[in-house]
Amino acid sequence: MTRSRPSDLFPMMAQALEEARAAAARDEVPVGAVLVDARDGRLLARAGNRVEGDRDPTAHAEMLVLRAGAARLGTPRLAGCDLYVTLEPCAMCAQAIALARVRRLVFGAYDPKGGGVEHGARVFDHATCHHRPEVIGGVREAEAGDLLRRFFQARR
Amino acid sequence: MTRSRPSDLFPMMAQALEEARAAAARDEVPVGAVLVDARDGRLLARAGNRVEGDRDPTAHAEMLVLRAGAARLGTPRLAGCDLYVTLEPCAMCAQAIALARVRRLVFGAYDPKGGGVEHGARVFDHATCHHRPEVIGGVREAEAGDLLRRFFQARR
Repeated sequence: MTRSRPSDLFPMMAQALEEARAAAARDEVPVGAVLVDARDGRLLARAGNRVEGDRDPTAHAEMLVLRAGAARLGTPRLAGCDLYVTLEPCAMCAQAIALARVRRLVFGAYDPKGGGVEHGARVFDHATCHHRPEVIGGVREAEAGDLLRRFFQARR
Repeated sequence: MTRSRPSDLFPMMAQALEEARAAAARDEVPVGAVLVDARDGRLLARAGNRVEGDRDPTAHAEMLVLRAGAARLGTPRLAGCDLYVTLEPCAMCAQAIALARVRRLVFGAYDPKGGGVEHGARVFDHATCHHRPEVIGGVREAEAGDLLRRFFQARR
């Protein structure tokens, strides 16, 4: 088993943060995600939220990279893949990550109000969840959280 | 307030069951869903599971009708809509239903192994869930359950 230091996870989270900033510029809630093939480190997909632009209630950044990555690999099962996202996933995205059998989930800010991994539904913690990824939270947490705070403050 | 008798819900569930049977014929887990505009009773979308065919881990019947209905209405918010599905939704679909602000969820069979409404994550029962639809379970439950049992028995 290889051990990851948190700093090993920074370059991929940097790309997720870029997607979050691009989402904010489009007036979308600033969350970004990337999907990586963990076998060779290849970036499979990157996206920011597109709920408003796509008029799609399911178009969270995590869903978009799962769908794009599965399309690219030609399979709905992403067992060799890691997902990086700037915010703790909601219950929808957490269950999608489990259904896709993602190897590892790395997220930035914790989300006590809407999160479904460490808060609320805690999707991975039930017997009805048939795959639990490795979970690493709090990676570049301050940057991810600041983006969200600034976005919502500007809208009040 | 109008009261619904369970039998009022049968015609829409019949269409969801048709979609579930069509999914089985495509070798997909037989679950079907329809989305209805509750203001005028208009059918907005109907779909069966397409996870394998679309190579999309998120392509559950519920997600497909939410996405198609939102595209048709031109908004990610489906507050005036009801969703009928043959099986209790998983946590992904339950949270998507909450995010879309669906008015009422009607489902067929209960799913103790994978459900996220009455089992497991119980997505609607947490403070992190900002919209709870009206929920009616067990409508044409036996037919929906039989379809699933026959499908999985044939594959053992």
